[in-house]
Amino acid sequence: MRVLGIDCGSQVTGFGIIDSGEQRHHLVVAGAIRPQPKKRFSEKLLEIHHELDQLIAGYGPDIMAVEDQFYFSNFRSVLKLGQVKGAVILTAARAGIPVVEYSPLEIKSAVTGYGRAEKSQVQTMVEKLLRLAAPPEPLDASDALALAICHIHTSATQVRIRAAASTAAATRHGDEPC
Amino acid sequence: MRVLGIDCGSQVTGFGIIDSGEQRHHLVVAGAIRPQPKKRFSEKLLEIHHELDQLIAGYGPDIMAVEDQFYFSNFRSVLKLGQVKGAVILTAARAGIPVVEYSPLEIKSAVTGYGRAEKSQVQTMVEKLLRLAAPPEPLDASDALALAICHIHTSATQVRIRAAASTAAATRHGDEPC
Repeated sequence: MRVLGIDCGSQVTGFGIIDSGEQRHHLVVAGAIRPQPKKRFSEKLLEIHHELDQLIAGYGPDIMAVEDQFYFSNFRSVLKLGQVKGAVILTAARAGIPVVEYSPLEIKSAVTGYGRAEKSQVQTMVEKLLRLAAPPEPLDASDALALAICHIHTSATQVRIRAAASTAAATRHGDEPC
Repeated sequence: MRVLGIDCGSQVTGFGIIDSGEQRHHLVVAGAIRPQPKKRFSEKLLEIHHELDQLIAGYGPDIMAVEDQFYFSNFRSVLKLGQVKGAVILTAARAGIPVVEYSPLEIKSAVTGYGRAEKSQVQTMVEKLLRLAAPPEPLDASDALALAICHIHTSATQVRIRAAASTAAATRHGDEPC
């Protein structure tokens, strides 16, 4: 499975693509989209859209993971971030790629095992899990990779839960009197 | 000038296109996009995008006007609305159409002359200004038409201000000693 994580932002939008393996995950590409500051907001959205379109066309991810925010300090920032997120989700939808969302608590738990981990702890764990020589930079790219890892771990857990439930059901069925 | 107004919403997105004339404005088309409720959010954005794309291709507006919200009762609703707005702005940007934003106060002032007008008063004024036989329905379409009217009136005012400033400058220039 090839997973694209996107950390949305109007100034910097981080991206990271990971291939999940049986035992290990492999970094494919990571970086950040930085729209030119002097551009109008609609042109910034267009730049993010075009760069993301190229990433999708070039690397063919199976799924995209974005953050499901639920708290902000002010309305202006949430509205702006929401607009970037809308453009990012639409870009994936246009390319036929399903979109999943994870809360910050889910991401931190999946990557570090602790839902209230600091950003630096998440970055260190991303470095270790992907066996990188240095922490992924910028932080936006690291957060995007954390999103992709979160999806891979969560999917694997769901597969294990379904397998366990299936085994338990088969056992119960076998125990039934004839 | 042909103006497309869009009233963003994840359940209902109103639209309205108006041609501005010397003395009168003419309604071209108005209505609402209602994504299927059972769809995933990304598919709703895609549906809004496709319908808006068709509107733009079919009617060729020169500019798009959207509302610049600044107050909401909760973060979840503002985040969702922001995502729809991002998808709508990206759709216009992809089609090469400039996007302008107006606050609720600017819209109400431009349409009714009173910044704190009720929604029903705005609807009545839209009906009168466009010489319609009945108030435009649904309210989302009426709000979209109000946005388009706001842009037409604001542009006309700016043209008059520029003309007056130009005349004043020419007069001052003429008064200058040789």
